[in-house]
Amino acid sequence: MAENRMEKIVALCKRRGFIFQSSEIYGGLNGAWDYGPLGAELKRNLKDAWWKAMTQWRDDILGLDGSILMNRAVWKASGHEATFSDPMIDCKTCQGRFRADQVASTPCPQKPSKMVTACGGELTEARQFNLMFKTYVGPVEDDRNLTYLRPETAQAMFVQFKNVLEVSRKKLPFGIAQIGKAFRNEINPRNFTFRSREFEQMEVEFFVRPSEGKAWLEKWLTDRIAWYESIGLPRKKIQVYDVPAKDRAFYSQGTYDLLYEFPFGAEELEGIAYRTDYDLKQHQAASGKPLEYFDEETREKFIPHVVEPSAGVDRTVLALICEAYTEEGVTDEKGNQETRVVLRFHPRIAPVKAGIFPLLKNKPDLVEKARALAADLRKHFPVFYDEAGAIGRRYRRQDEVGTPFGITVDFETLEGAKEGPLAGRKDTVTLRHRDSMQQERLAISDLLPRLTAALG
Amino acid sequence: MAENRMEKIVALCKRRGFIFQSSEIYGGLNGAWDYGPLGAELKRNLKDAWWKAMTQWRDDILGLDGSILMNRAVWKASGHEATFSDPMIDCKTCQGRFRADQVASTPCPQKPSKMVTACGGELTEARQFNLMFKTYVGPVEDDRNLTYLRPETAQAMFVQFKNVLEVSRKKLPFGIAQIGKAFRNEINPRNFTFRSREFEQMEVEFFVRPSEGKAWLEKWLTDRIAWYESIGLPRKKIQVYDVPAKDRAFYSQGTYDLLYEFPFGAEELEGIAYRTDYDLKQHQAASGKPLEYFDEETREKFIPHVVEPSAGVDRTVLALICEAYTEEGVTDEKGNQETRVVLRFHPRIAPVKAGIFPLLKNKPDLVEKARALAADLRKHFPVFYDEAGAIGRRYRRQDEVGTPFGITVDFETLEGAKEGPLAGRKDTVTLRHRDSMQQERLAISDLLPRLTAALG
Repeated sequence: MAENRMEKIVALCKRRGFIFQSSEIYGGLNGAWDYGPLGAELKRNLKDAWWKAMTQWRDDILGLDGSILMNRAVWKASGHEATFSDPMIDCKTCQGRFRADQVASTPCPQKPSKMVTACGGELTEARQFNLMFKTYVGPVEDDRNLTYLRPETAQAMFVQFKNVLEVSRKKLPFGIAQIGKAFRNEINPRNFTFRSREFEQMEVEFFVRPSEGKAWLEKWLTDRIAWYESIGLPRKKIQVYDVPAKDRAFYSQGTYDLLYEFPFGAEELEGIAYRTDYDLKQHQAASGKPLEYFDEETREKFIPHVVEPSAGVDRTVLALICEAYTEEGVTDEKGNQETRVVLRFHPRIAPVKAGIFPLLKNKPDLVEKARALAADLRKHFPVFYDEAGAIGRRYRRQDEVGTPFGITVDFETLEGAKEGPLAGRKDTVTLRHRDSMQQERLAISDLLPRLTAALG
Repeated sequence: MAENRMEKIVALCKRRGFIFQSSEIYGGLNGAWDYGPLGAELKRNLKDAWWKAMTQWRDDILGLDGSILMNRAVWKASGHEATFSDPMIDCKTCQGRFRADQVASTPCPQKPSKMVTACGGELTEARQFNLMFKTYVGPVEDDRNLTYLRPETAQAMFVQFKNVLEVSRKKLPFGIAQIGKAFRNEINPRNFTFRSREFEQMEVEFFVRPSEGKAWLEKWLTDRIAWYESIGLPRKKIQVYDVPAKDRAFYSQGTYDLLYEFPFGAEELEGIAYRTDYDLKQHQAASGKPLEYFDEETREKFIPHVVEPSAGVDRTVLALICEAYTEEGVTDEKGNQETRVVLRFHPRIAPVKAGIFPLLKNKPDLVEKARALAADLRKHFPVFYDEAGAIGRRYRRQDEVGTPFGITVDFETLEGAKEGPLAGRKDTVTLRHRDSMQQERLAISDLLPRLTAALG
């Protein structure tokens, strides 16, 4: 059932242009995905919502947009070069390579009905495989020019801490926010876009006084859950996992994982980690550059502590799609039972805000009016104009991609509304609501304020 | 003079948090830059303006957000693996490597006052150096797993052409738009962020009937120049270079370069290339997958032609900063002559829209009122609250980062305006205009509509 649901979601994503396999015509690239027209908009809306909530709407967080390629010294100091690895085993029979802690749930490439632990192949001992992608910067391929694609966006915020502090003149507590691509050479990518090799992160490093770290960890936990609710992930589908000390990084004084109940199980959307002063201390020691904060009130110099809410963009996009995906039995215009597929996106993150339809394609007056309305509304938000096929089918096509509103230009628009409070009035349209499928008559002049308020 | 101007701009970018050297505390990484708080906002505003103009505001272009890592077959078919290279020479004396066509303008690393051609070092013959960054995807570092960081975003739009066509049901002419990072292992990065190794592109692939290619090339030229004007780059600073046939790619039937007059010379912001059917043809042949378009009217199948307007994000950000940078002699409050540095950004792309100031920091009523106003306005656009120092200095600080409006809460706000049309009225503020430095009295309730209209 859950598997079936996931298959349907993946098929919808491809069919309607949310997510394609990268380089699909060449057989793809394992662990890399492209967002199609609707997926690109959905992802943009998600990132915009996060960025606004983190920077514009508050006074204490500043944005940063750092490079993917950084000096290798960053990854030595952060510990990634030495320890950012997963245990890997080889199968001597099929030559496959697998994550050692997942062999019981990874299908054998040669006997897909069996898992790697049960297919009979002879396995090597596990050894550590570093997940950072290597490359060489500059025209000489030698060790001095080696670096990595960043495996997380966080480090730029630590190494630029002092610059940001100086240009912003901020006092503690304050944070740095960043959205960007990161790369991990996963041994076995899995679960559609959930665990991929190229992905995007939304991270805040929030710098605080050491005595206030634990309180801020709790505050961020509350804030982040509320934010997920604001974009349409209900509280009851989010699990909070209080990571026990033995499973945390040695320097962490507390970590919460926020898990969403995907069809393939509850998996992490975001980690909120109280990282103490570990990162800044490491970089101060390795670079020889002071990364301290001077407290003007107490006249003390110290390295701030940090709380890091770190969210996955692609995982959240996938959670939004999974949460929105609904099948329901409905009766069509001819009285037949059928299944309606609808993505119940929060209007704030829906990729298209309104579908605009002339009732009939072959009536120039209707078409002209509907096109003019579309041209007018698209100045304010993304709309989709569609004149092809029966109006019921056009509604369904927009339901399936989560468009919250349908606007139909019909003969009453031209001739005057037949009934209701607007009876006799021209320039009215039908406004159809995606979730309830209810329709109401509305003056064209009332559309923009009405929709703008609903899209908030 | 021009050099001096560029030095001042680079210094301002660092000092005020537009652009930092990547990994600066470790000595940087040549050709990689980080956008600080103000730079990140400026870049976002630029990309948003482009994305809206290309997708939301028109009916014929769809967005895509493709991966940076693609199947190596893409780069074989596109020709990049064989030919995406620059001529490189080595100096046998200092071991430096240089772009052969730039040695006359590249300083010698050991004798910086001389250029490489004149320092006396013995140079090798030029040979081709491929500019793509290599990496290995998956746990085995062998030739089968080799691929590249994309050197341009364009290819994803070609290889996904059929998918986008199918999900969108578009008819020719239509386009695909994408913004994203690309990487080129430049032998000698130069001119600040202008020629870097990691950069961002904004590209459209616009697919047309073969007979309409030349007309669309002209139309795109006009449209793109108008767009640069709409974000604040004046027509007179943009040069159009009609690339002669001998300097174009062999398949191109016309290419225009748009150059902006930077302090370091006129350099390319965007290339608009009529690429014919070259790219789709290459990928169809290499992948064996049909990439044709079926014209329902003429019942013909053909490979569409493409016109590609390809813009550099970082270059345009730099052009906007260079264009905005102004020094002017002004008289301060005490009658002294001083130099005012002001970034005259178009309000649409300015990183901060309004500075909000209580006249005095030590008057709780003023501070409370100003803070409340800031909290209210930041729901709508980015604002900056500042209470530190003399009001004149606070204005100057915002002038220097291009904030178009300054709003000051003073005693008249609390007690009633002393003069003018609002005399006697409470809850008014001073609105100061960045460019003219003129001030006017405005009711707080009129601020939001007034500013929203101006920021449009």
